[in-house]
Amino acid sequence: MPGAQLSLRGIYAPVPTAFGDDETLHLDELAQNVRRWNEEPLAGYVVGGSNGEFPLLTREERLEVMRVVAGERSPGRTVIGGASMESTGAAAEMAVAVAEAGADAVIVVTPWYYKGRMTAAALVAHYARVADASPVPVLVYNMPAHTGVDIPIAAVAELSEHPNIAGIKESLPDAVKIGRMIRQCRSGFQVLAGSAGSFLPALAVGAVGGILALANIAARPLDRLMVAFTSGDLAAARTAQLDLIELNALVTERYSIAGLKAAMDMLGYYGGPVRQPLLGVSSAEREEIRGALAQVGLTS
Amino acid sequence: MPGAQLSLRGIYAPVPTAFGDDETLHLDELAQNVRRWNEEPLAGYVVGGSNGEFPLLTREERLEVMRVVAGERSPGRTVIGGASMESTGAAAEMAVAVAEAGADAVIVVTPWYYKGRMTAAALVAHYARVADASPVPVLVYNMPAHTGVDIPIAAVAELSEHPNIAGIKESLPDAVKIGRMIRQCRSGFQVLAGSAGSFLPALAVGAVGGILALANIAARPLDRLMVAFTSGDLAAARTAQLDLIELNALVTERYSIAGLKAAMDMLGYYGGPVRQPLLGVSSAEREEIRGALAQVGLTS
Amino acid sequence: MPGAQLSLRGIYAPVPTAFGDDETLHLDELAQNVRRWNEEPLAGYVVGGSNGEFPLLTREERLEVMRVVAGERSPGRTVIGGASMESTGAAAEMAVAVAEAGADAVIVVTPWYYKGRMTAAALVAHYARVADASPVPVLVYNMPAHTGVDIPIAAVAELSEHPNIAGIKESLPDAVKIGRMIRQCRSGFQVLAGSAGSFLPALAVGAVGGILALANIAARPLDRLMVAFTSGDLAAARTAQLDLIELNALVTERYSIAGLKAAMDMLGYYGGPVRQPLLGVSSAEREEIRGALAQVGLTS
Amino acid sequence: MPGAQLSLRGIYAPVPTAFGDDETLHLDELAQNVRRWNEEPLAGYVVGGSNGEFPLLTREERLEVMRVVAGERSPGRTVIGGASMESTGAAAEMAVAVAEAGADAVIVVTPWYYKGRMTAAALVAHYARVADASPVPVLVYNMPAHTGVDIPIAAVAELSEHPNIAGIKESLPDAVKIGRMIRQCRSGFQVLAGSAGSFLPALAVGAVGGILALANIAARPLDRLMVAFTSGDLAAARTAQLDLIELNALVTERYSIAGLKAAMDMLGYYGGPVRQPLLGVSSAEREEIRGALAQVGLTS
Repeated sequence: MPGAQLSLRGIYAPVPTAFGDDETLHLDELAQNVRRWNEEPLAGYVVGGSNGEFPLLTREERLEVMRVVAGERSPGRTVIGGASMESTGAAAEMAVAVAEAGADAVIVVTPWYYKGRMTAAALVAHYARVADASPVPVLVYNMPAHTGVDIPIAAVAELSEHPNIAGIKESLPDAVKIGRMIRQCRSGFQVLAGSAGSFLPALAVGAVGGILALANIAARPLDRLMVAFTSGDLAAARTAQLDLIELNALVTERYSIAGLKAAMDMLGYYGGPVRQPLLGVSSAEREEIRGALAQVGLTS
Repeated sequence: MPGAQLSLRGIYAPVPTAFGDDETLHLDELAQNVRRWNEEPLAGYVVGGSNGEFPLLTREERLEVMRVVAGERSPGRTVIGGASMESTGAAAEMAVAVAEAGADAVIVVTPWYYKGRMTAAALVAHYARVADASPVPVLVYNMPAHTGVDIPIAAVAELSEHPNIAGIKESLPDAVKIGRMIRQCRSGFQVLAGSAGSFLPALAVGAVGGILALANIAARPLDRLMVAFTSGDLAAARTAQLDLIELNALVTERYSIAGLKAAMDMLGYYGGPVRQPLLGVSSAEREEIRGALAQVGLTS
Repeated sequence: MPGAQLSLRGIYAPVPTAFGDDETLHLDELAQNVRRWNEEPLAGYVVGGSNGEFPLLTREERLEVMRVVAGERSPGRTVIGGASMESTGAAAEMAVAVAEAGADAVIVVTPWYYKGRMTAAALVAHYARVADASPVPVLVYNMPAHTGVDIPIAAVAELSEHPNIAGIKESLPDAVKIGRMIRQCRSGFQVLAGSAGSFLPALAVGAVGGILALANIAARPLDRLMVAFTSGDLAAARTAQLDLIELNALVTERYSIAGLKAAMDMLGYYGGPVRQPLLGVSSAEREEIRGALAQVGLTS
Repeated sequence: MPGAQLSLRGIYAPVPTAFGDDETLHLDELAQNVRRWNEEPLAGYVVGGSNGEFPLLTREERLEVMRVVAGERSPGRTVIGGASMESTGAAAEMAVAVAEAGADAVIVVTPWYYKGRMTAAALVAHYARVADASPVPVLVYNMPAHTGVDIPIAAVAELSEHPNIAGIKESLPDAVKIGRMIRQCRSGFQVLAGSAGSFLPALAVGAVGGILALANIAARPLDRLMVAFTSGDLAAARTAQLDLIELNALVTERYSIAGLKAAMDMLGYYGGPVRQPLLGVSSAEREEIRGALAQVGLTS
């Protein structure tokens, strides 16, 4: 039962995809980024998630990015590969391809286009078929802000019994839902938080870690938060959480991927442009981001 | 200025894609359907729209379906091909490919995954780039129920000035928005209704026609509605509208594509299964659909 | 069966409540307004609706306003009095008081605070109790923009069988819902549109008239629209509809009651201030309103 | 500066209003309930909140209930009185009356009917006027599930500078918002959680306590949760939180006030009926509630 054995404990960076000004993949710059992230206190990487602009990449591009990250990650780090596709059959096939490209686990967002039809039954059937086909453990990925679909707790509980489903990334900052999932799912089912802004609340109710956009630029303060929490120093954990909360709102929620990439550029990573239809940040927005980074000591 | 010259007047059937039980394309059955639709009072066909399950098809499958419908349609009928892709560059490239596959115009849904970033500026830039690249006129496709994005009136007004943007399919049953678009867009910009349930209200404020799922099974009563409206017989138009309103709600809204395909099966077309993650209708639902078809005289 | 006998055909002005700068009732100014509206082509008045700021008035103030309007209206005009209260018992009691104060019918908005509990069963029970108690016919008032509650079609159909429920004011600009209600309700059940922006679409599917904020300042163009529609001159009706659509969006939707009162001030009525928590319009907004009035010929 | 001096630390029960079968106030039964709650580990009571069915009571009934609870509460317990009114002037006047009736502080929900107009400026002006008038400290009450209004963080931050505004009850289970409010408001501004389901997450980011419907029936386990949290025993706090999470979802969210009252009846309090338009729970629902109470050891 591979799903039950993979530990997801810790902080994962959902890595952005590096593009040039002509929107082509810049794989060397991506590899460089991974080598730098290897120096940071991270449990691993997520490739081909929302921050990776997966809906804007072709299938082949997604696999290329996957191979680069899997090839560059340092030993012991887990790579979770995005296998999200609207069609269930395509997602099952993608899970196989992503695993072959080096992923230790795959993560699959709820189907999103036919949101009105994504009943609990449809979601359970989708994930079960993907998990049956996947050679590596599967994570459910709930992301209502992008999908307009919010997988019900009961569906997650049912899926938690599948031997090849290891856990869920719950992107809602809703600790009640996280708590209820932990309560209703099989023991050992792993919940990962999806936002640095609610990382401590999620840990408090039992999340084992997080896939956090902010981990791309602030792995150390996030690690300090998690270490403080684990060691029972709740006051330090709260301070760390509140110190990061505005930066997270600014960089990842307000300006989204373009903002995250701008911050990466300021911190010595390759951020670069986003792919259209996404638009870049203005220079005023860039200055606001620079100020927020300075305020939490990420830049001098 | 091709966009300004293409007349979109009339009723278009957004054709479903024919699958077998193994989810593979059934192109012969699709071709048969088109030959039957050729006998119905329709202005043309839309291929690769939401009813065509485009997000569940590969790029190559979408082009195959396009070629079949373009090849089978009778002379004088317009074929509008779906070129929707999340990435702007991919949508522009798809518009070229879809036109080469036989489309007289292309229709492009608003990008949907990064819905929080789909500002008016992002949407205008997306469509302008697609329209610049497309060899045939472009229609904007607004479909908030699936995308979670509602293109603002001002963005449509701006896009209506582009010489290669012919019109919009507005799927919201919101005659106020349609009226305001007609008021604010360049004269000659064509608005198509997106639901048979609000076809008469849309015509009343100036829509020139509709892309209506119900046209796949009820082209004649829809044609009667439009003829009555055009000839000023509003009482007959209202009766025709109200006669269809419950069937439309049932088949296309409540049971969606699976319901439409079930109805097609009952009426001698090839409906067949939907692709997963969509699920089929139950036999109880099938009976409900059968009853609704009988009530409006579509079955004996 | 009084509900079945009262004709609601035509255009009703939902009259604003006149306040002074100290927020006190200005009943003389209200009376003056009514005498001017008596010269306009209106079927009657609605008192104590959303435009009347009823939630900001005490029960006694609401009755005072009711008495003034009932006393001043010219013969033959119908006065519909708002009896909306959160508590069902209070609404039933208010219906009696409002009728005693001169209302020919009462209108009751769906209860709004406990919106999550306002099931079809709760709404049917609410209206049935009010209608049982009311000495005059009752209108259902659906206003999701304010209440967060959207009464289901099936509940309206059930309520239409009550002998003392005459009709519904449906404020959603959703002609599909209006059409389906007309289809499902008892014959003779009267639907009134709730917005001038979708008046023609509502008439097209069978509404008998409207309670339109814009009727306070633009009764004549609205009357021309309805006359054109009734006489089958759809082109003229459409022109009239589109001519008013932007003014309606600006005055009643964008700036709401404060905007409507500002427009009234410009047109020789007493508009005056709104009650807090509502805020007045700025002088820039006032100029925008002035321009919109001029554009449709309401000011010279 | 009274607002700055009142400590809100701890757990408050938002007491339901006791009605008989004829919907009249049952003040003796209410008094009995208060005397029993006096034996429970509570910091105080909230009167006239959403759980108190305040929108279904007359002004005079609300004051009667206030006087009973203030008269019965044991020494040292804080009574917070609801002064919510749609009109700002009426809310200011109500704050005075509620304080005279015995409240140590007043709590005022955001105005709710004209939700589209409740801008940050309107909300700040509303609370400032109430706080200027109130003889006792004021709490902001954010309750989007009922009001459809979500007060922005910036507005709360601005209001936190008012010398007579002591804190906020934030009913959203959104620890990010709570954290950001604590970060942006003046030091000493007190945030109370609004749901037992997210009590621990709220405490984790800095809330000082909670106004929790569940405190009416489960004050002891909630107290154990808070004590465990305060003493740094996070594992015990998490267990206590997860133990209560399903009961809270069932009793207060799923069945709302009727469910809470049913549970009170089972636990020896006077619960009694709700006022219409609210409806009671069915006997099947009652059994479900009984089972949930037994599961957490509240009944034998």
